[in-house]
Amino acid sequence: MVGAGQLARMTSAAAVGLGIRFGVLAAAPDESAAQVCAGTMLGDYRSGADLLTFAAGCDVVTFDHEHVPGDLVAAMEKAGTAVRPGSHALRYTQDKLVMRQAMADLGIACPRFAPVRDLAGVTAFTGPDGWPVVLKAISGGYDGRGVWVCQTPEDAAAVLAHGIGLIAEEHVPFERELAILVARAPSKQGAAYPVVQTVQRDGVCREVIAPAPGLPPDLAVEAERLGLQIAAELDVTGLLAVELFQTGSGLLVNELAMRPHNSGHWTIEGAVTSQFEQHLRAVLNLPLGAPTATAPCAVMVNILGGPDPDLRSRLTHVMAADPGVKVHLYGKPVRPGRKVGHVTVLGDEPEDVARRARRAASYLALGID
Amino acid sequence: MVGAGQLARMTSAAAVGLGIRFGVLAAAPDESAAQVCAGTMLGDYRSGADLLTFAAGCDVVTFDHEHVPGDLVAAMEKAGTAVRPGSHALRYTQDKLVMRQAMADLGIACPRFAPVRDLAGVTAFTGPDGWPVVLKAISGGYDGRGVWVCQTPEDAAAVLAHGIGLIAEEHVPFERELAILVARAPSKQGAAYPVVQTVQRDGVCREVIAPAPGLPPDLAVEAERLGLQIAAELDVTGLLAVELFQTGSGLLVNELAMRPHNSGHWTIEGAVTSQFEQHLRAVLNLPLGAPTATAPCAVMVNILGGPDPDLRSRLTHVMAADPGVKVHLYGKPVRPGRKVGHVTVLGDEPEDVARRARRAASYLALGID
Repeated sequence: MVGAGQLARMTSAAAVGLGIRFGVLAAAPDESAAQVCAGTMLGDYRSGADLLTFAAGCDVVTFDHEHVPGDLVAAMEKAGTAVRPGSHALRYTQDKLVMRQAMADLGIACPRFAPVRDLAGVTAFTGPDGWPVVLKAISGGYDGRGVWVCQTPEDAAAVLAHGIGLIAEEHVPFERELAILVARAPSKQGAAYPVVQTVQRDGVCREVIAPAPGLPPDLAVEAERLGLQIAAELDVTGLLAVELFQTGSGLLVNELAMRPHNSGHWTIEGAVTSQFEQHLRAVLNLPLGAPTATAPCAVMVNILGGPDPDLRSRLTHVMAADPGVKVHLYGKPVRPGRKVGHVTVLGDEPEDVARRARRAASYLALGID
Repeated sequence: MVGAGQLARMTSAAAVGLGIRFGVLAAAPDESAAQVCAGTMLGDYRSGADLLTFAAGCDVVTFDHEHVPGDLVAAMEKAGTAVRPGSHALRYTQDKLVMRQAMADLGIACPRFAPVRDLAGVTAFTGPDGWPVVLKAISGGYDGRGVWVCQTPEDAAAVLAHGIGLIAEEHVPFERELAILVARAPSKQGAAYPVVQTVQRDGVCREVIAPAPGLPPDLAVEAERLGLQIAAELDVTGLLAVELFQTGSGLLVNELAMRPHNSGHWTIEGAVTSQFEQHLRAVLNLPLGAPTATAPCAVMVNILGGPDPDLRSRLTHVMAADPGVKVHLYGKPVRPGRKVGHVTVLGDEPEDVARRARRAASYLALGID
């Protein structure tokens, strides 16, 4: 796995039971996954030489993020290593304009969009009544970085001043955000996890409720169908997470990711097969595991760094207060707002489960419950 | 963790979420846990120098087996490292005579026993009607090694000829074997998992059914009480597994282990807190996690090596046949009769769950379902 963040760290734990040799390409030995994984190679994911050396020791290469330049992904493929997802599929996660155009070509509902180069382009897109408008970096964004909600032309001008490739998108008045996580293997087998509700703040995922409470069955089926369709049409191998807006008139596709995804962390305890094991099964072309939920409800809440870096002392209190909370720490230095871990709680009553998970995450982050 | 077998391997995976640095002392880089764990030191668990070097890099030292000589455990303690369980407790797993005497002193029911040195001692123990008799090596045995069921004085003479320290035990006509797994922290907090039934063949654990089917509630309570009492009386820190005989007149203590135990592998999926996480919490003096079951029934079946070493090709078929089976491979070369992995299935119906788990394990081992 190229990259050694928390996704690689959790994938490393899932690899243990499969009896496979799992390695990461890490920038430094103290990166999240490098701390725990025996098979760490140090190198730069932007270096073709490092990638080819890493790939030469692998049967299959996959990714913890979408930032490996497309030509370097293609170079690994050309050198003969199985790269999953492949460069043809990863392209849709690296270029939002290409992704939007592909969705439009497939007839899949998305926010209205257009590439923009200047303020005239933005105001042509919005018309007089189209504000606020969303501007997105065509490449390089994640976790809210590279996404700007502009209330006014002045806001838009400030974003345009960055001089990066942008698309404009309509600001969708959604009811809530959902995500559908599917896996697809080279065998063409697919599997869909239950549809979840995600709660974002400042563009960062804060919590995930599985399954999405009160979701009408026809929308759940539609979301699963969308996920499996997109995975098949884009020839994804491995996981595909599709972030969705639920609106009064149905579902719109917001973003795609082709890797384990924050919206799927609940599956470690909450599904028969975790997303991390599923990703490995898919990229290794093993039969997929059951994506079935193990409890009526699971809630995952991210632990974002607060002002006090001493997570460890607060961990003791959280464990003592609720022995049923599952805490996952990523071994990352605490910085304000940074994802440093998550907690998951399973149970029967969504409100009770959410309350327990939020309390634990809040205490871990801030010392406040 | 001193030792790098499958118990250390699975503990390593549990350490990932706790955000701790976890290392193993391994004899070779291809040992089961060393394959996956970033923190591997190569060394010999029978070498005081290696143990002290390893311990110097740890806040707490624990064990994947009970074979570290007691004086070397004590030397690590003397050097100032927290060793859990401590040498005073480990002694009871390293010397069966000391263990039996301690149980007798505590008034805990055990098979009748006596140290024996020669055939006269054995026949004095058995009397004319006491055959078959069980002879056990006082130290060094595990997985059926060091245990002999002797039908005749000739059998006993052959065992005595090994020239090792032995105890004789009555051959108990048990109804079935049970195990109770508890954890105890330095804080004195304790937690007990549900009582399980274990099925052994040739002294090797073959399968575990959790909870033990049809166990009368008073016996379940008695087993939990026994586990917690023994852990407290022997001042165990970490896990304590107590192997029990269920007889017509109640429970007898057979063996003790102070580490993650084969009878607890089902807890990875089947309990809120796996035995591996629980052992880490206990030895780190963190609050213990909930030992509650996550499903009405769990069955774990060991994969013992068969004549064909190619587990991998059979894994594909098992995954395809039953996407709900959880397979855990240990990365060990397949040798006939060797534990190379296990499978766990959860569900509502013990018979259906056991059938699925046995089928998967049998196919993985032998290519026969």
